[in-house]
Parts: sequence; C-alpha cells; structure tokens
Amino acid sequence: MRVLGIDPGYAIVGYGIVDYDGYKFNTVAYGAITTSAGEPFSRRISVIYDDMKTILKTYKPDALSIERLYFNTNTTTAIDVAQARGVILLSAEQEGVEIFEYTPLQVKQAITGYGKAEKRQVMEMVKSFLSLNAIPKPDDTADALALAICHAHSAGNLYAKTLKGVKGL
Amino acid sequence: MRVLGIDPGYAIVGYGIVDYDGYKFNTVAYGAITTSAGEPFSRRISVIYDDMKTILKTYKPDALSIERLYFNTNTTTAIDVAQARGVILLSAEQEGVEIFEYTPLQVKQAITGYGKAEKRQVMEMVKSFLSLNAIPKPDDTADALALAICHAHSAGNLYAKTLKGVKGL
Repeated sequence: MRVLGIDPGYAIVGYGIVDYDGYKFNTVAYGAITTSAGEPFSRRISVIYDDMKTILKTYKPDALSIERLYFNTNTTTAIDVAQARGVILLSAEQEGVEIFEYTPLQVKQAITGYGKAEKRQVMEMVKSFLSLNAIPKPDDTADALALAICHAHSAGNLYAKTLKGVKGL
Repeated sequence: MRVLGIDPGYAIVGYGIVDYDGYKFNTVAYGAITTSAGEPFSRRISVIYDDMKTILKTYKPDALSIERLYFNTNTTTAIDVAQARGVILLSAEQEGVEIFEYTPLQVKQAITGYGKAEKRQVMEMVKSFLSLNAIPKPDDTADALALAICHAHSAGNLYAKTLKGVKGL
C-alpha cells in the first residue's frame, strides 16, 4: 500500500510518500511545495494544485492521508489554509485517490502510542520508522510523513483484522 | 465589462453574470451550482470546480466578484465553505479571470447606499437594477448578482475616475 501524507498549508505544503506491506516501511519520496508570499493568493493555490497533480501522477498513491483542520485562533490564516486544503482535496479526488483525515492527536497516538507526545518525539519516531539519517526538513515534511505512517498503520491494522475475520483465526 | 458574481458555499454556490457599460446593466445568466449532501466532500468540491470551469468557459467574464469570508460561528461549516471557495478561486485563476473580494457591508453599501440595509432591500434593488420580473431564487443567486453589480459599480467608478484624470476634467 502506498500512502501520500499531506500537511496542508498555503505557504508550505509538506508531502511524504511511503510504501507499507503490513510489516515494514519503504520511503518513496518527501519534500515540500512552497509558494511565494509575493504572489496573489489565487496564484499560490494554483501552484499547489499543479504540484499536487504532478506528485499524484508521478507516485500514484493508493490513499491520501491529510490533517483535519480545526480553527481556534488566527482566523485569516485559517481561512487561507482551508482554501488551499480544498484545492489539495480536489486534486486527489480528480486522480481517484481515496482521502483519509486524521487529527494531530490521532497522528501522535499512531506514531508514539501517546496522544500528547512532544513534536520532537514524533519526529524522532518518523526518522526511526523510515530508517532516515536525519529528521526531514522543514517540519511540514516530517509532519506529512507522520500522517502517511499514521494511515498506513490504521489501514494495515484494518487489513489484518479483515484477514483475521475471513480466515476465522 | 462582464462580471461574474459568486456567493461561495459547498451545498449551494450562487452565480450571476452581468454586463455593464458604465450606465446600464444587461443580465447575461444566473443560477446556482448545487451539490448533494449524500456525496463525499471531495466529490462535492469537484462538482463545483467542473461547473465553475463550464461557466467561466461559456461566459468568459472579465472579472470574478466573490464574497470575502469571515469566521465567527459554526466553524465546521466555515472550514468547508473556505475549502470550496479555494476551488472556486482556483478555477478563476486557471481561466485568467481577475478576482475581486467584497465584504457583505461593501455589497450592501454599493447596492443600496447603506451598509446596514436589510437583505430584502438589497434583493429588491438587484431586481430593479437588472430589470428582472422577480427576485432570483435561491437567495444565493440574488446574492451573487449583488456581488456582480457591486464590482461593476466599483470598477465603473474607477474607470470613470481614470478617464477624468486622463482627460484632466
């Protein structure tokens, strides 16, 4: 199973692609889509859309794992993150990729086994799961890989449970 | 000048297209893009994107006039409206249509001359400006036409001021 993790934003969109066979991970690619603050907002989300399409067409993931949004503070930023996230969802829908959403708490729980884990701890676990030499930069990229691992674990467990049911084990 | 007014949403997107020559309006088309609550959210914004592209390609507006978003209450709905709005902005950007944003207060001011006008009063003025037999339904469509008129007035005035400057009147 190939999962594309996305940390949504409009200045930086972190992405990370991992393969998972139910036992071990293979890191396929990761990085960040960045847009320039000097550009009009509509131009920025157009860049995100085009780059998302390229990533989706290049790596053909089975699933998109994306952070669920909650708005508490900084409303103007939050509106723009949501607008960019809409464009990201559109790109996945158009490429026929199933979309899964996780809260930050669910991601921390899946990665560290503890929903209130420190950010640093999550990142160290991402590095360890994927056998990377260093924690990927920027943080948005590491967060995207965490989302990909989170979904792979959830879906992997579901898959294992389904098999168990089918085999009557 | 041809203006496409859009009242953003994810269940209903009101749209209205008007031509304005600086003196009088001609109503080109109006209606609403609707999406089904039974569909996944990503499918709904994909429908909005496709319908927006059809409207933009069919009517080739010079400008998009769209309501600016503010989030006060009902946060989940607000996130989804913003996500749908991102897709609407993307469609206009891709078609090379310039985007203008107005607050509800600016729209009321432009249509009735009074920023705190009642909704009904705004709609009656829309009907009158466009010489329509009835107020368009749903409300989202009337709101979209109000946005189109608002921008036509603003841009028309700017145009007049520019001419004045050029001619030294």
